[in-house]
Amino acid sequence: MPELRKEPILGRWVIIASERAKRPDDFKSPVPKSPRAGPCPFCEGQEATTPPEIYALRPNGLPKDGKGWDVRVVPNKFPALMIEGNLEKRGKGIYDQMRGIGAHEVIIETPQHLLSVAALPTEHIQKIIQVYKDRLLDLKKDARLVFGLVFKNVGDAAGASLEHTHSQLVATPVTPIRIEQEMKGCKTFFNHRGRCLFCDIIMQDIEDEQRIVINDEHFIAISPFASRFPFETWILPKQHLTHFENITSHLIAPLADILRKVFSKLEKSLNNPPYNMLIHTTPFNLEESEYYHWHIEIIPRITRVAGFEWGTGFYINPVPPENAAAFLREVVV
Amino acid sequence: MPELRKEPILGRWVIIASERAKRPDDFKSPVPKSPRAGPCPFCEGQEATTPPEIYALRPNGLPKDGKGWDVRVVPNKFPALMIEGNLEKRGKGIYDQMRGIGAHEVIIETPQHLLSVAALPTEHIQKIIQVYKDRLLDLKKDARLVFGLVFKNVGDAAGASLEHTHSQLVATPVTPIRIEQEMKGCKTFFNHRGRCLFCDIIMQDIEDEQRIVINDEHFIAISPFASRFPFETWILPKQHLTHFENITSHLIAPLADILRKVFSKLEKSLNNPPYNMLIHTTPFNLEESEYYHWHIEIIPRITRVAGFEWGTGFYINPVPPENAAAFLREVVV
Repeated sequence: MPELRKEPILGRWVIIASERAKRPDDFKSPVPKSPRAGPCPFCEGQEATTPPEIYALRPNGLPKDGKGWDVRVVPNKFPALMIEGNLEKRGKGIYDQMRGIGAHEVIIETPQHLLSVAALPTEHIQKIIQVYKDRLLDLKKDARLVFGLVFKNVGDAAGASLEHTHSQLVATPVTPIRIEQEMKGCKTFFNHRGRCLFCDIIMQDIEDEQRIVINDEHFIAISPFASRFPFETWILPKQHLTHFENITSHLIAPLADILRKVFSKLEKSLNNPPYNMLIHTTPFNLEESEYYHWHIEIIPRITRVAGFEWGTGFYINPVPPENAAAFLREVVV
Repeated sequence: MPELRKEPILGRWVIIASERAKRPDDFKSPVPKSPRAGPCPFCEGQEATTPPEIYALRPNGLPKDGKGWDVRVVPNKFPALMIEGNLEKRGKGIYDQMRGIGAHEVIIETPQHLLSVAALPTEHIQKIIQVYKDRLLDLKKDARLVFGLVFKNVGDAAGASLEHTHSQLVATPVTPIRIEQEMKGCKTFFNHRGRCLFCDIIMQDIEDEQRIVINDEHFIAISPFASRFPFETWILPKQHLTHFENITSHLIAPLADILRKVFSKLEKSLNNPPYNMLIHTTPFNLEESEYYHWHIEIIPRITRVAGFEWGTGFYINPVPPENAAAFLREVVV
């Protein structure tokens, strides 16, 4: 059973995933990448090679764990957290810990062996978003879980272990520190100014123009003012919305469209870079608020994070976001 | 001139190092590693190929930028921050920025082309620590600078661009968010319990025994309770000390000794892993306090940081720190 441990200085939680534990010898670097034997377990026809499915979009009447699906959700084969059991929160001296309860699911985005979500038609990307929503709404019913992170790792350098396009969903029993910090910053801003900080970012970036990548009717894609990484791109709904899982059907199509465009631009201009995508949304256990705004962060992993960044929380970005945005605006997709 | 920009949500600063700017085409991944042409610029005899030296330990009478030094400090050839100029703090709407003023120095640890600091005798490592101290004390005199981070990047995956063993020092005009957060956590603990949290960690870890790597008279090396990474190792002075740069001469030899032992253990057991080392200390502009304690963090870079970590601030560590410590204790060096 994995364990959640709290770092007493920052209050950051760490998952000690002892189930995944390897002998220290396995870490002798460079970590050899074992070539995958046999067919891709995410492809249609290989359903038996994954753990039994949790959920799938497939025409009525077709059997579970068989062919014919559009989007399929399975438990992660090497889960960071386990869904069964109680939290058993406990402390010893200054240290706090609990059992590693949570969900860790893989969303297989297509039955075809495609390497990029941008290769899918917008209509199919809508289905993927629908599955994100459905899974979050389902996990939200579990009173032990307070936050769900939907994310994508694409490419080796971004931590992907399989190339077949997929997303992941991890639901945690504590609010992640990053979300807590973002919400705290937004609340402080709201208390001072009476407005949502993300709404202000959208307004100012539209006015400034220079950091806009795409400005659609319902969504905006920007290179944020203090981008940590070259070509970091955020997608935000223009309307003040707090919970991603409450996305209404009229917004799913425009979100699918802007996601496809942003990924296509990044892939085309940067030659299919490794990247991470993550959705930041309000924790399950909090109501709608005036101060927090869900958004998507896309981080191309083309620069290295080194000692200075780890030591300070500063980032060094060699590409001014205004240059990145101008460049991405020009890419025809 | 690089620019410092504040991310309005978390309050994190980012260095937009436009001097380092490359055309977007340069980021087409995978980033090709250009093989270094010619001799190593950090080796003795190549002094003319670095920017003119800032400082060096060398026998009296020998000329600057010539041979015969033990440890040599030069400006980083591609500095993230520039030492000349005023901060010119300014804002536009919700965004804050200032000029990228600061120091970015490279500490060449030995004139010989060695790849590891652990290959040096303890007496030489003492000299390196002395240089860290001397440079921090000098930069502290500059009223524009409030924090100095000494760090090491070793190996490609840890962001090193040259293999000749070296450290870096970056001094910043704002307190890094990571240091602010650590100090805040320690202050909260002190306000509740009246003790330094790091002193408590040392006491509890000595009592628990399991996370101890080395327990010397003056210093301790531990695998922290909530280690983010496999074989993450911290070195702390047992005495409550707040400012690294005030290290007294009787502690320099034991620090050199424990550093050499820890690096040797990590290198021997993990086959020369890439790693980052960083020294966390009290900002220049703060007095000694009862609540913050300088310490060294060493992070082997043998696992990947992916979307889940970026999105949440959680880390997944497959090696329980108790196992890591037991393993490292056994390594004979």
